Amino acid sequence: MVAKKRNLVVAQSGGPTPVINCSLRGVVETCRQMPDVFGTVFAGYHGIEGVLQEALLDLSAQSADEIALLSVTPSAGAIGSCRYKLREANTEDFERVIDVLKAHDVGYFLYNGGNDSMDTANKVAQLAQERGLDLVAVGVPKTIDNDVGDSAFQLIDHTPGYGSVARYWATMVAGANEENRGASPSDPVLVMQAMGRRIGYIPAAARLADPDREMPLLIVLAESGMGLAELADRINDMLRQRGRALVVVSEGLKLGDLGELADSFGHTQFSSSKTTVAQTVVNYLNEVGLQARGAARYNLSGTHQRHDMITASTVDQAEAYAVGRKAALMAAEGQSGYMATILRDEGPIYGVHYDSVPLEQVANSERVFPAEWITADGTDVSDAFVRYARPLIGEDWPSVPLVNGMPRFARLEQRFADRMLPGYVPQAYR
Amino acid sequence: MVAKKRNLVVAQSGGPTPVINCSLRGVVETCRQMPDVFGTVFAGYHGIEGVLQEALLDLSAQSADEIALLSVTPSAGAIGSCRYKLREANTEDFERVIDVLKAHDVGYFLYNGGNDSMDTANKVAQLAQERGLDLVAVGVPKTIDNDVGDSAFQLIDHTPGYGSVARYWATMVAGANEENRGASPSDPVLVMQAMGRRIGYIPAAARLADPDREMPLLIVLAESGMGLAELADRINDMLRQRGRALVVVSEGLKLGDLGELADSFGHTQFSSSKTTVAQTVVNYLNEVGLQARGAARYNLSGTHQRHDMITASTVDQAEAYAVGRKAALMAAEGQSGYMATILRDEGPIYGVHYDSVPLEQVANSERVFPAEWITADGTDVSDAFVRYARPLIGEDWPSVPLVNGMPRFARLEQRFADRMLPGYVPQAYR
Repeated sequence: MVAKKRNLVVAQSGGPTPVINCSLRGVVETCRQMPDVFGTVFAGYHGIEGVLQEALLDLSAQSADEIALLSVTPSAGAIGSCRYKLREANTEDFERVIDVLKAHDVGYFLYNGGNDSMDTANKVAQLAQERGLDLVAVGVPKTIDNDVGDSAFQLIDHTPGYGSVARYWATMVAGANEENRGASPSDPVLVMQAMGRRIGYIPAAARLADPDREMPLLIVLAESGMGLAELADRINDMLRQRGRALVVVSEGLKLGDLGELADSFGHTQFSSSKTTVAQTVVNYLNEVGLQARGAARYNLSGTHQRHDMITASTVDQAEAYAVGRKAALMAAEGQSGYMATILRDEGPIYGVHYDSVPLEQVANSERVFPAEWITADGTDVSDAFVRYARPLIGEDWPSVPLVNGMPRFARLEQRFADRMLPGYVPQAYR
Repeated sequence: MVAKKRNLVVAQSGGPTPVINCSLRGVVETCRQMPDVFGTVFAGYHGIEGVLQEALLDLSAQSADEIALLSVTPSAGAIGSCRYKLREANTEDFERVIDVLKAHDVGYFLYNGGNDSMDTANKVAQLAQERGLDLVAVGVPKTIDNDVGDSAFQLIDHTPGYGSVARYWATMVAGANEENRGASPSDPVLVMQAMGRRIGYIPAAARLADPDREMPLLIVLAESGMGLAELADRINDMLRQRGRALVVVSEGLKLGDLGELADSFGHTQFSSSKTTVAQTVVNYLNEVGLQARGAARYNLSGTHQRHDMITASTVDQAEAYAVGRKAALMAAEGQSGYMATILRDEGPIYGVHYDSVPLEQVANSERVFPAEWITADGTDVSDAFVRYARPLIGEDWPSVPLVNGMPRFARLEQRFADRMLPGYVPQAYR
């Protein structure tokens, strides 16, 4: 019996990573190698919103060159991502997804995202079955935070995207150390705020810049529970010892004594609604807390950490590609309701293998940063963390082609599938 | 007659650049090639503060490898910079500088900095002459802001350091465009704040990411004089046209209607003392001004733009080296009271030549951003700017060696000249 060839939709959800397009390339190139299984490969343009609105970008129509260039194109500009969540109560949205997939003869649905997205993919798979749509739904993991899956690293060792952001941080801190060395004593404190609201893998990666602990580097994860006054004490201790300090703070740090500060100063600048953690620390130091000549300053990389391609990890690029390829292979094998995953090989030489885990297990998991990887004083991470994370950043700069001095990113043609259905307004937008 | 060989002191002042060490390398390697002229090459460790405190790092004692690695080592960590200014009234400081130079048989003083530093170098040269010290003082230009010299580009075409920061901005905006494309409609506005308090060359460089004006990019220099409400209008116009907006703002932008805003909201979060321009814009948009779904967000690169080596310009690296070399050659020729300079060749093929201009002329000059390079609507720069700036960012990524995954920066041995004089506390610190 020859299986009928069906179309595929791949979509992305949530914050992007520098290597999210590597996974997309892995999906597309693998599908092209299996023309008997896969028909047209579509992207939900801007994720599930694109599916709801029947905006399906035709990836099969794109040239091999542009698909290959996805590997050096950071962030989610190629096919778009979204923050739109399919909520359980919004049953019309779910039905609409099924209608769109049916209308375009879609037999494969690949959803790239974090834990929430795996839950969504699972629900879509279940509903499809109920509605008589023979749909293979497969998850593709992605997040810079490394918060997908479980704390024991059994569902997934690390998430594509994390290695590149880790490398951004390690590289930036290496440069920041030169800045801070050169700038002291007039600017003795440089505070840098890292992404990762719920989990500290990103700020922890700053340690990779200095595994031998030669820099005056303090790393404060949200998990440390450190307050503002205590943090200022640690910074002043470092200034006394070394004359300068590099301070990496998590954006999720709860600076518990903010209220007191606002009271004692009588203004609201320190309210957390409008100011960032880094700014709060620096304002506090500069107004009352800095026991040294000069001033503290701060950097807020913001989105740069997830769209800087030249600091991406070549290991991460390769793994993100492989996980996309694995997901397409799982789809071809009809392995619905599973996520492609990366598991670390045993032994002293870093290596990984690709496997699959049930979407439901991922959706119901929560990863935390191992408490034993935070040092007792709360201002550093341990060598065990370094052993875990060091292989993920790789050894080399990625090769990013330049044309007219600028990175040559993939430019996909804006060719969309013909619309077969009436227009639809997603429920959350009504 | 054989001239007696004399020692040299090189010192840095003010904010660093990614290529400041290229000039240092140019000085040291040129001096090494002229052993009959130059004795020991010292660095004032942390600039003029190091000279005042007789902290003279021995650069002659460093290996050729480490000196060469200076070219890939960003910022001023190698020999340090300072914000300390020799003030006219602080005559003891000036006398101390002469005493230190005399004590170490220094015949050559190279000062790397901006306009102010050229003034300082000139004063040191004059005082040395009055005090009977035969001193050749030469200026080495440096600044990321491109604000050294004159507006007509006759004293200097551009300053070493600017091309690299321009390249940082062009590269970052290219990536940010991928982020913003992918993130809309949930995060349709990305505001990025550029350095350059007094002059807009840095934010202007964002245009190099998109000379054909395909991105929804607004560039607002401080010189535009644009207020907050008007800027919000322009951003909303862009959102209506394109659905998203990249906004590069100068840190020096005076958002004139802040006062009104604070009044109408009844709180002080928008006071300029504690918040940045980017934050003010984003807070305003998110609270009242954004005529679109989603939220505005902002990035604050901070010092990263001047210590990111991999986005440095290879053209800038080469020119910064050459200008250091030129300064050393000028010193050897006894050309005291001059600054080494870069002048652009005529004609369609980019090229420069190195020359010298009187320190006094540089010190008394002020460069402004040409008004005709700002477009009439105040949200872009012209093609004439692009023609000026494009050659400065070069064509290729610089080669930054990696060891253990991290950039291998120069590591100078901490070998200092023996102290010959009693201790000294700089006047401003008393």
